[in-house]
Amino acid sequence: MKKFYTQVRVLFADTDAMGIVYHGNYLRWFEAGRNEFLREIGFPYAELEKLPVWLPLAAAHLTYLAPARYDDLLEITTWPSRLTYATVRMNYEARQKESGELLVKGYTDHAITDDQLKLIRAKKICPEVYETIQKIVEENEAEDAPQP
Amino acid sequence: MKKFYTQVRVLFADTDAMGIVYHGNYLRWFEAGRNEFLREIGFPYAELEKLPVWLPLAAAHLTYLAPARYDDLLEITTWPSRLTYATVRMNYEARQKESGELLVKGYTDHAITDDQLKLIRAKKICPEVYETIQKIVEENEAEDAPQP
Amino acid sequence: MKKFYTQVRVLFADTDAMGIVYHGNYLRWFEAGRNEFLREIGFPYAELEKLPVWLPLAAAHLTYLAPARYDDLLEITTWPSRLTYATVRMNYEARQKESGELLVKGYTDHAITDDQLKLIRAKKICPEVYETIQKIVEENEAEDAPQP
Amino acid sequence: MKKFYTQVRVLFADTDAMGIVYHGNYLRWFEAGRNEFLREIGFPYAELEKLPVWLPLAAAHLTYLAPARYDDLLEITTWPSRLTYATVRMNYEARQKESGELLVKGYTDHAITDDQLKLIRAKKICPEVYETIQKIVEENEAEDAPQP
Repeated sequence: MKKFYTQVRVLFADTDAMGIVYHGNYLRWFEAGRNEFLREIGFPYAELEKLPVWLPLAAAHLTYLAPARYDDLLEITTWPSRLTYATVRMNYEARQKESGELLVKGYTDHAITDDQLKLIRAKKICPEVYETIQKIVEENEAEDAPQP
Repeated sequence: MKKFYTQVRVLFADTDAMGIVYHGNYLRWFEAGRNEFLREIGFPYAELEKLPVWLPLAAAHLTYLAPARYDDLLEITTWPSRLTYATVRMNYEARQKESGELLVKGYTDHAITDDQLKLIRAKKICPEVYETIQKIVEENEAEDAPQP
Repeated sequence: MKKFYTQVRVLFADTDAMGIVYHGNYLRWFEAGRNEFLREIGFPYAELEKLPVWLPLAAAHLTYLAPARYDDLLEITTWPSRLTYATVRMNYEARQKESGELLVKGYTDHAITDDQLKLIRAKKICPEVYETIQKIVEENEAEDAPQP
Repeated sequence: MKKFYTQVRVLFADTDAMGIVYHGNYLRWFEAGRNEFLREIGFPYAELEKLPVWLPLAAAHLTYLAPARYDDLLEITTWPSRLTYATVRMNYEARQKESGELLVKGYTDHAITDDQLKLIRAKKICPEVYETIQKIVEENEAEDAPQP
């Protein structure tokens, strides 16, 4: 699988009075993973915005398996799994860096829009981005397919 | 349907550079809805904690239909829909207060645990809370059922 | 003193693993106080923006006297104390609503700018806002002055 | 001057509808700087907590000189400047990494307490930490002193 990695350090700002990371903050770290993914494939979001191509959220899902705590070093894994003419799904895992324990997994579905939040045909407006992501999705799908 | 309502005012703190509410912040407002729901049924979460009964998240799902913007007044609707021996699902809608437009809907699944995050049998540890929520779930289900 | 009041309920989202409100979140509630102040004097910030008049921060100061905890109901008191041709100082107190205990006090200094963050002459661009705030500042100063 | 450096990348989560970083978020990054400072001098905060030594905020001051925007890479500079028997001041600068432009400077004053938020004599409870910080403060003061 072609996946992308970034690290985050848990601050007090990220925790709550239960002594664990507040559940909402994983969406922030998923954003960090998504940003670094786009940078690594050569299309930083700050560049996409200039086209203008925006990726507002259509949906988000998170499954919480184990808590993270203050000062934990987390590794965020990010990869795209679905690309349609105007939507893309990004997948994420948050793990303890040291132990590799999976803490939270999830995905975000994004509309592909202009700066007025109107859907655009990604393949036409930003063909290079579209094809690069499509290639990663296909490579990952091929690897997932049952072997003869 | 027996639903519970609370209001929130969108601050700059809640928005992002797209000019709309940052998607992660709805989980904060769902928490506000959940807190007020528990207070209204007579079991504020601050009281549950003393038993101790905690409700850490097991999963969250959000569907984004329309953006909210700075200074919008939002109404958060909250209701429980599933209760098992050690889990509960809470449902939410965020609407524009004035127009009633539905912006975001979602749910959070909660484990029912002690203060060490160990699952507990809610029916035994906090029977009054359990029965109160169960009654609301049943009332809502009855109303949802097909009519003869 | 002519002061303005708004209330906030402490969520888990606002707390940290010390079991108290994370210090940075008071700036959020000071914003809430500032927004409601502007609304009450008849010039909601959402309206100022259309002129366009922006109030970006030039400085902030907070003094922490006592901690707030999950589910506390806080009262935020807000009032303006200094107005120059292109700056305004807003003052804040955060108190426990029930006991009146002062938890945090502080101020924010704002530049008065257009939507390009360029300083503007408030008295000329938005004279009604300027005069309304100036009047409140003067009333408060008069009350603070030593009595004969 | 003996200073300590850490980097942060601005996310959408950090920005607001003005298109710039929300002012309250610098306190989060100052925390990141403080955490990395303590780690570098050999006393990560997660270790201090076990003693228990806590560093709750007594005051914070921020001066905003220029805005940061989405995807900016910031360098946070951190150093201690005052140490008394039960308080410590930490200083911060946030700069554009690439240009070196100073965006925000500030300080946080911390009480040195136990886990009940009671002041403790740092020199007695955690002498190694105290002396290490004191040495850095003195070195920085010596460098700041007027030269003959």
